[in-house]
Amino acid sequence: MKREEALEIVKKQLTERRYVHTVGVMETAIELARQYGADVTKAELAAIFHDYAKFRPIEEMRDIVISENMPSELLEYSDELLHAPVGAYLVKKEVGITDPEVLAAISYHTSGRVNMTLLDKIVYLADYIEPGRSFPGVEEVRQLAKESLDSALLQSVSNTLTFLIKNNQAVYPDTFHFYNDLIL
Amino acid sequence: MKREEALEIVKKQLTERRYVHTVGVMETAIELARQYGADVTKAELAAIFHDYAKFRPIEEMRDIVISENMPSELLEYSDELLHAPVGAYLVKKEVGITDPEVLAAISYHTSGRVNMTLLDKIVYLADYIEPGRSFPGVEEVRQLAKESLDSALLQSVSNTLTFLIKNNQAVYPDTFHFYNDLIL
Repeated sequence: MKREEALEIVKKQLTERRYVHTVGVMETAIELARQYGADVTKAELAAIFHDYAKFRPIEEMRDIVISENMPSELLEYSDELLHAPVGAYLVKKEVGITDPEVLAAISYHTSGRVNMTLLDKIVYLADYIEPGRSFPGVEEVRQLAKESLDSALLQSVSNTLTFLIKNNQAVYPDTFHFYNDLIL
Repeated sequence: MKREEALEIVKKQLTERRYVHTVGVMETAIELARQYGADVTKAELAAIFHDYAKFRPIEEMRDIVISENMPSELLEYSDELLHAPVGAYLVKKEVGITDPEVLAAISYHTSGRVNMTLLDKIVYLADYIEPGRSFPGVEEVRQLAKESLDSALLQSVSNTLTFLIKNNQAVYPDTFHFYNDLIL
């Protein structure tokens, strides 16, 4: 699928603001893929579609988690997690993308997981550091990304965990395992 | 077992400094047990023996984890975790304490776990806030302990997680589950 076609499809699913974010993630993922030797085409495609389900109704996403036998613990944590695995499902079903590496990178772009592939890592990190992001700590992660993919990921997931804990929010197990996996 | 006898037994296993800590944990655990309606005698006994294995050689503790079929992931994380489950084992074997609630409170006083019992919680918290402790954040937890056991525990485990993450240290899964269990 050509970039223009993919962007046209995803644009219809997103707000203008989220579309601009998506283009930022795409450009960052391409850069990171070149830098770290990942498949640039797959990185581009996964980045374009990473937020495909972002604006689906929560109930629709919860129904898909149940009907598609996704891990039921997805229903016990923040609804913010749902759009990633549900997005992978819908991108396959509605857009016809079947590459399992691309779908996995979409599926784990919010939670992370153990044994992240290179493509998973690139989409996760691109989502965190794309130029439109401006939260505390993002600049430090951008600098780390120039030197080491895993150091940048460790800093980003550490920031996320610290934020969740500070705000008394539950931590999805895959995110915790992603952190430990980067340490151990 | 009488308090004096128990203290005499444990004193031989500890440095002077750690024995003073143990007496502090005992006094705090008794107070918390009275306040929150736990069995005061069990709280006293578990507190006295909570650090029984603290100064055993690491290799001896690792051998016990293997020979007694304790969770093998204990060997993959900080050695600081070992003295708690190994202590429960040795207190049973060498001192003859068999009460499963007391042994569990010793076993989980460092890591925590899901579904902590009231006794587990009291020993965990007493270890954190006994009067000899002076690390950042301990006074806030002491104040919370006057109002709510779970609020104090959440603050203490949040402090621990934040410290570990800041220092790029792995988080033992039981500790992470303990945190989520207090939130969810």
